[in-house]
Amino acid sequence: MSQDQSMANAFVPGKAVLSPTDEALLKRRTRALGPAYRLFYEEPFHPVRGEGVWLYDQEGNAYLDAYNNVACVGHCHPRVVEAMAAQASLLTTHTRYLQNNIVDFAEDLLSSFPGELSQIMFTCTGSEANDLALRIAQVKTKGTGIIVTENAYHGVTLAAAAMSPSLGAGAPKNENIFKIPAPTGRKEVDEAEIFRANVEKALDEMAARGIRPAALFIDTIFSSDGIFSHPKGFLKPAVEAIRAAGGLFVADEVQPGFARTGEEMWGFARHGVVPDMVSMGKPMGNGYPVAALVIRPDVIADFGNQTRYFNTFGGNTTAIATATAVWSIIREEGLLQKTLQIGKAFRAELEGVAKGSDVICDIRGSGLFIGVQITGEDPRARTSRLVNGLKKKRILISASGPDGDVLKIRPPLVFDARALDFFMTGFDEVLKDI
Amino acid sequence: MSQDQSMANAFVPGKAVLSPTDEALLKRRTRALGPAYRLFYEEPFHPVRGEGVWLYDQEGNAYLDAYNNVACVGHCHPRVVEAMAAQASLLTTHTRYLQNNIVDFAEDLLSSFPGELSQIMFTCTGSEANDLALRIAQVKTKGTGIIVTENAYHGVTLAAAAMSPSLGAGAPKNENIFKIPAPTGRKEVDEAEIFRANVEKALDEMAARGIRPAALFIDTIFSSDGIFSHPKGFLKPAVEAIRAAGGLFVADEVQPGFARTGEEMWGFARHGVVPDMVSMGKPMGNGYPVAALVIRPDVIADFGNQTRYFNTFGGNTTAIATATAVWSIIREEGLLQKTLQIGKAFRAELEGVAKGSDVICDIRGSGLFIGVQITGEDPRARTSRLVNGLKKKRILISASGPDGDVLKIRPPLVFDARALDFFMTGFDEVLKDI
Repeated sequence: MSQDQSMANAFVPGKAVLSPTDEALLKRRTRALGPAYRLFYEEPFHPVRGEGVWLYDQEGNAYLDAYNNVACVGHCHPRVVEAMAAQASLLTTHTRYLQNNIVDFAEDLLSSFPGELSQIMFTCTGSEANDLALRIAQVKTKGTGIIVTENAYHGVTLAAAAMSPSLGAGAPKNENIFKIPAPTGRKEVDEAEIFRANVEKALDEMAARGIRPAALFIDTIFSSDGIFSHPKGFLKPAVEAIRAAGGLFVADEVQPGFARTGEEMWGFARHGVVPDMVSMGKPMGNGYPVAALVIRPDVIADFGNQTRYFNTFGGNTTAIATATAVWSIIREEGLLQKTLQIGKAFRAELEGVAKGSDVICDIRGSGLFIGVQITGEDPRARTSRLVNGLKKKRILISASGPDGDVLKIRPPLVFDARALDFFMTGFDEVLKDI
Repeated sequence: MSQDQSMANAFVPGKAVLSPTDEALLKRRTRALGPAYRLFYEEPFHPVRGEGVWLYDQEGNAYLDAYNNVACVGHCHPRVVEAMAAQASLLTTHTRYLQNNIVDFAEDLLSSFPGELSQIMFTCTGSEANDLALRIAQVKTKGTGIIVTENAYHGVTLAAAAMSPSLGAGAPKNENIFKIPAPTGRKEVDEAEIFRANVEKALDEMAARGIRPAALFIDTIFSSDGIFSHPKGFLKPAVEAIRAAGGLFVADEVQPGFARTGEEMWGFARHGVVPDMVSMGKPMGNGYPVAALVIRPDVIADFGNQTRYFNTFGGNTTAIATATAVWSIIREEGLLQKTLQIGKAFRAELEGVAKGSDVICDIRGSGLFIGVQITGEDPRARTSRLVNGLKKKRILISASGPDGDVLKIRPPLVFDARALDFFMTGFDEVLKDI
């Protein structure tokens, strides 16, 4: 494994002393999985069990998981496992046979979207959903130009990786991709106007190079750019700009979707816009590989007439049963409201700590997606010390942003007062030592 | 849903009278899932339960599944469901933490490959595995030219769909894709030499257009081209040709892999070649979305140094536990040997029927992947009548080939003598009525 400057919080072999068993495992792992895999943390984490917001290592030590958004309703939620196993015992099959549960779930999930967004297609991963969105956008607009932010991440297929500058210099080259600066995060400027102007500038460059616009892809909370959440609504003029040029707006909700932001079920809704397509994934099956793309019928019409889409596992009966359970839990346990409340409390506590600190200069985010901007000398190294210091306190987070200087805090949505207390106790101690 | 001439055995709305409940479901389905989804059969099938090689409809009627290769060890195999549920109850997490089971499984699975193929990367779908193979091939060779057969299918990502002419005229255009004729299937010709010459011709065209070769992608049993299995070894000169030009050979084992051909665990081995990369998927998790790419270390080295690969669900602990169970069952139940035997018996029975028939002109395949070439006037329509006639006899198969004139028979590997008997009884009757 080589050092990867483009990835914050990457494990660098040789920097830490591992236990003999983990050292041996790591050696076998590198040999069998090859050089493209990365691990997190100076000393890699080796969990063996999960429950709620907690992960346990081999010695039974509990780690607070303040990072994994996949296990949104809590690690190993029994009702999700039960729904998955029950369906897998009965039937697992595909979308070329008639099935009730895919239609029931599709209708139910679509009811959480504005009416124009009334059709859904199922894939296995967020990468596949974004890749499909690109295919559909190309057919609908007859354009190829794509606008993304400078440190965006939209997936790992060839097409999605080319839209993901956060992958670093090794990301696939594609002359149809136009990068714009992420939001500034500065409260004194007109974020909406600056972002719109950046989209316009990219559209001008596109026009100058004779490339017709296809879409603006935006992760509506800018997860890899450093987490930019406010002011609400700042995306609106940029969305109007891409549409005025004949392009589509694709909201990548793989990270901000499914109640994560606390204020709305989907991140785009915080900005008062209705996308042309919405991709989603990670938390959708609480770990089961299931993802989707929600679309306006007039956007998918040409694609559907010209070609077909079949994804062997996408929308299979067990994927749908699992996603149905997760979706029910999110609503029945009131996780949107709970996320809003605990997220507010979380940011208030962090604000309190930040006041007396010269390490933190900004706290951003919404609900349980929080970015803590680190400042001072070598903020990247400082961020790394904080992330790894927290790990020693048995608290798991990671880092974000092109400079790796933003703490990325994104726990399961069942994060509660006890978890918050555990987090803040550890955080205070680590901050003092920095 | 529009009529799709490029897809054999596609349901065409309005041609058959459905039950009122299925008609209502279909209407809701079309409204919610949009126009890109297709169903099989004149009258769509609506299974509600599966067990072994049998699928059951709402009235409890048993249908012989002679088509689904995903449920390779049988629908809803209890040991697979148990392994999946047990791991999902314990921990589902990703490859950026250390995990034992992914390393154990990787080593075990790799032991079924020739020694040079010693590294593996996990994805969720065969599409993602082929897409990743393309990315790696581009980095390794610094080329972009790809050779595929005229009716190939390699997946649904933008890059993989462009390598899939079987998707029809609506497949994404890509000037780097060069199509060559599928094998002829004719016994009197030198299949190896013809196929090699076609690869050479594509390489010449590539050179003429200044495109550097990256890879030859071959489904080693030509699943969508019409199923071409013999003579064994006919791929070898073509593989030598692509390598001589500096390109790689990628064996797409998504359909022929995991014992399907009965003779070898992997289809490429029947041809006495060792690929540079091998993709696999469909049967790997018996329905759980898990897929992989096996690679030679020198092929992945540059890619791994330049960039990283992370797939949120790819190789997660539950995917691996499920795939481990499937892999164990394949070997412990001796499914390779059983597939060889029952496949031979199956083809012998079909040969017997073919002798007295002017409908069948060739029977191809290996193990439990069988292609039956239909002949006579309008073979496409005849094939469709056979497929739909068998469905009325409660036997599920589909069709293959650019002209939709090949019966595609590809049952779960636990297909047994009773299943064969049921199949042949129905087949005899349908053939008489044709």
